[in-house]
Amino acid sequence: MPPHILRIDCPDEPGLVHKITGVLFNAGYNILSNQEFVDLDAKHFFMRTAFEGPTAPDRVVSYLQQILPADSVVKLVEAERQPIVILATTEAHCLGDLLIRHYSGELPAQIKAVVANHETLGDLVKPFGIPFHCVSHKDLDRAEHERRVLEVIDGYAPEYLVLAKYMRILTPSFVAHYRNRVINIHHSFLPAFIGAKPYHQAYERGVKIIGATAHIVTDDLDTGPIIAQNIIPVNHTYTAAAMVQAGRDAEKIALARAVRLMLDERVFLHGNRTVVFE
Amino acid sequence: MPPHILRIDCPDEPGLVHKITGVLFNAGYNILSNQEFVDLDAKHFFMRTAFEGPTAPDRVVSYLQQILPADSVVKLVEAERQPIVILATTEAHCLGDLLIRHYSGELPAQIKAVVANHETLGDLVKPFGIPFHCVSHKDLDRAEHERRVLEVIDGYAPEYLVLAKYMRILTPSFVAHYRNRVINIHHSFLPAFIGAKPYHQAYERGVKIIGATAHIVTDDLDTGPIIAQNIIPVNHTYTAAAMVQAGRDAEKIALARAVRLMLDERVFLHGNRTVVFE
Amino acid sequence: MPPHILRIDCPDEPGLVHKITGVLFNAGYNILSNQEFVDLDAKHFFMRTAFEGPTAPDRVVSYLQQILPADSVVKLVEAERQPIVILATTEAHCLGDLLIRHYSGELPAQIKAVVANHETLGDLVKPFGIPFHCVSHKDLDRAEHERRVLEVIDGYAPEYLVLAKYMRILTPSFVAHYRNRVINIHHSFLPAFIGAKPYHQAYERGVKIIGATAHIVTDDLDTGPIIAQNIIPVNHTYTAAAMVQAGRDAEKIALARAVRLMLDERVFLHGNRTVVFE
Amino acid sequence: MPPHILRIDCPDEPGLVHKITGVLFNAGYNILSNQEFVDLDAKHFFMRTAFEGPTAPDRVVSYLQQILPADSVVKLVEAERQPIVILATTEAHCLGDLLIRHYSGELPAQIKAVVANHETLGDLVKPFGIPFHCVSHKDLDRAEHERRVLEVIDGYAPEYLVLAKYMRILTPSFVAHYRNRVINIHHSFLPAFIGAKPYHQAYERGVKIIGATAHIVTDDLDTGPIIAQNIIPVNHTYTAAAMVQAGRDAEKIALARAVRLMLDERVFLHGNRTVVFE
Repeated sequence: MPPHILRIDCPDEPGLVHKITGVLFNAGYNILSNQEFVDLDAKHFFMRTAFEGPTAPDRVVSYLQQILPADSVVKLVEAERQPIVILATTEAHCLGDLLIRHYSGELPAQIKAVVANHETLGDLVKPFGIPFHCVSHKDLDRAEHERRVLEVIDGYAPEYLVLAKYMRILTPSFVAHYRNRVINIHHSFLPAFIGAKPYHQAYERGVKIIGATAHIVTDDLDTGPIIAQNIIPVNHTYTAAAMVQAGRDAEKIALARAVRLMLDERVFLHGNRTVVFE
Repeated sequence: MPPHILRIDCPDEPGLVHKITGVLFNAGYNILSNQEFVDLDAKHFFMRTAFEGPTAPDRVVSYLQQILPADSVVKLVEAERQPIVILATTEAHCLGDLLIRHYSGELPAQIKAVVANHETLGDLVKPFGIPFHCVSHKDLDRAEHERRVLEVIDGYAPEYLVLAKYMRILTPSFVAHYRNRVINIHHSFLPAFIGAKPYHQAYERGVKIIGATAHIVTDDLDTGPIIAQNIIPVNHTYTAAAMVQAGRDAEKIALARAVRLMLDERVFLHGNRTVVFE
Repeated sequence: MPPHILRIDCPDEPGLVHKITGVLFNAGYNILSNQEFVDLDAKHFFMRTAFEGPTAPDRVVSYLQQILPADSVVKLVEAERQPIVILATTEAHCLGDLLIRHYSGELPAQIKAVVANHETLGDLVKPFGIPFHCVSHKDLDRAEHERRVLEVIDGYAPEYLVLAKYMRILTPSFVAHYRNRVINIHHSFLPAFIGAKPYHQAYERGVKIIGATAHIVTDDLDTGPIIAQNIIPVNHTYTAAAMVQAGRDAEKIALARAVRLMLDERVFLHGNRTVVFE
Repeated sequence: MPPHILRIDCPDEPGLVHKITGVLFNAGYNILSNQEFVDLDAKHFFMRTAFEGPTAPDRVVSYLQQILPADSVVKLVEAERQPIVILATTEAHCLGDLLIRHYSGELPAQIKAVVANHETLGDLVKPFGIPFHCVSHKDLDRAEHERRVLEVIDGYAPEYLVLAKYMRILTPSFVAHYRNRVINIHHSFLPAFIGAKPYHQAYERGVKIIGATAHIVTDDLDTGPIIAQNIIPVNHTYTAAAMVQAGRDAEKIALARAVRLMLDERVFLHGNRTVVFE
């Protein structure tokens, strides 16, 4: 039996940990791990608890909601492999890395499908026994393309979407549909090099370290809350093309890490920042 | 008013967090941060809590000792700058780094004195207004030298000792006198290259990364519980001497980090390992 | 046209760079990049030159051999994708990573085949259009198993072999057959934790950083010349199993890096060390 | 006898390495190390050679200037400890780190003096036997303050200036006076967080890695050619103040590295980028 995961996010007040752990203790559950954080400036409390016990803990949530502060967010997750859908375009490194991890059983997710706006990666995906859907954007306006993409995605009822180098900008309506559930990998060390061709910008600027940033997608491109970042040292011998290639390793490791953290329910949004219990 | 730090280390049992936080809550204290860890194999519980409140919490400890399991270790530390004595020989980089941090006020410690077995570093230490004692080992057997060193150290009643490249092996009797309170920096990525001249061993082996290890001193040389490790990439252009020099940065950063973690009471011994709440 | 790669490795003497570049200049070739290293203690010279020109440079080698010191090793490589065979057992992460890189065209190699002593990974390999051979060691003595493995490998005439978590110890006779052409990934930061179950050893020792080491295979297990190393920070929350999983990323990145360096002909053996021109 | 260092920077053309090494070989010099780089896009050649020999190599430069392309920059440096002056304000960590390295003899420089716009750091500097000058900016306009600072600096005839957290913006006239000879440390991972309070910006953005950038000072603040960068991982528990403190280690290591590289004459400017021969 996998453990239950309890996530709580509420205004801080004295005695919260005592109260919450009391509910679990009195109900006969055994806490396996417990992580808390208080933002002392914002006076906000975050907690993630993994616990086990003989019975289903549904009533724990409703009981907690009664005794916790009014604006509390309480979420109970059964720590199984949550369903995801991956979006991609033509680059294989991030998608391939996720497929191999899924194949090895090391990803806390079920990849239900891969949706791409090009046919390119179909041959890579299909042998893994995962459905591949090409929804071309050709001759479609953005709204119509997204409508078709969402139609495919929604059919799989994913808990999270992973943009594995999906080179299309999402509209606010798409983002709202999967609010705070879309994970993207940006190929720069944000907030440096926002926008197009970040490696070329990095090359022009002559940086000595390049990076990648996995973040939650919000309406503003490349400014969503950061989950994980990763860097690679470079030097004067790297052309922009060599940086693109070297950066792939930073990208795939950062994205896989973010996917794992999100699916393990270790990430809390906190304004435009994140609290990540590792 | 700095916060109070409560450290608890005991056999695991259900409800510990609820109990402990209840004691603090009922006594009117406000928890600032809370970190727990349960070793599920060893069934052992570790907790560090920073809390604040109007009155001195002395009674908290005695009360906790009554309600916690029999073998519990409960320690209350007032998070002020705890007194330390640094031991050194002739190398300046680790000692100098600690002196500058102390001067800048970024070290959670009061350096009461520096004791060395050579005169070399006296001119570096004295201008900082810190007593420097040279206790030469010349013409003395190990026991007599240590007796004289301890006499000087004990006069300062330090909470911790820091070996900042002190190139003398401590006897079990010395170690017992400051049991689990002596922090050493070893100039290799332990357990690689135990023993003498680790950088020369690393050069001979042709490694591509060198490291440094800060650890608690135990009777067995270089095998004490590890607090912090740090690495530096090297390549074929590094001679052994160049590795020695490059390694200095790894050493001083690892040692300073370990000193900060120990003095902030974030390190728990757990057999020959450590639990470090960062 | 890809550039020609010239590798020279000889006793040092004055004027070598002048002589060698003179040969290329006078023959009308254009040097694209040039890297040299002199081990001043061993008085040995290493050089790697990438150059281009209209005609095939075969005569360059024979001419250089006449004018260079007697024990010189001069090797000319056409920088195309050299053929390799990968050996594996049951773990997918290193093999899968190489397959994805190969698929993306970022590996300077042609993977001619994958040979394994278990059937497990066949389903992963075949969709990539790469032959998969299972040569079970069941009921065979080591010599006979190796004979059969070599028979398969030799049929592909690979330039290099890559052990992607191949969990069989190679005999000296096998190693001699592909002398200095077998790349292995060891799942520890060598020379720490030589031998079996390195992550479990690392867990027991309580290290704060784990690593992986890619090296050339020699007769002595885990002591061959190191090509690349990679590390991952860990802490007290990592069980040995969690270290195994975290270490996979260090392993696959280190192995891919070593494969790229070897196949780009950037690695020179130098006793039990390597000179790596990055 | 320390080796001679030859730096050459010129338009690329075939045969350059052959020509240059020929001059040294024919004059009887022995090359200790040799590093070249050709920017194939810009068609520009860079070379750094360390060599030794019985006689002073002054004529080497004039002879090379005759045979190299018209726009060549040829510089010969005797690899001794070049004179520097350090500028600071009130923070001790970068200055202190340089002082300790200087004291240990590991810095390839002679610190001739420290100039600050506050008295604060005088007590730290003087015991090292290094002159400390406070040139207050109080009641002075920028031009007059700089005039007085330059008067003090010029008296020491430094080869390079090091800004060790000197919190004053330099005018173009000051920069022109020490064109390409002023090394600054900026407390962010440039180009992220240009401008004031970069750690506070980093905190607000919720980054997971912070950094520091050592660069050559040009007229545009924070946009000069980058020499070295360094990073430190952070997480949600870091306040802006904690990032400031953690960042100090990244700053001092990056600055010391840049100072070493510059003084060892390993850095070439290349437009707004650098070629760094490590």
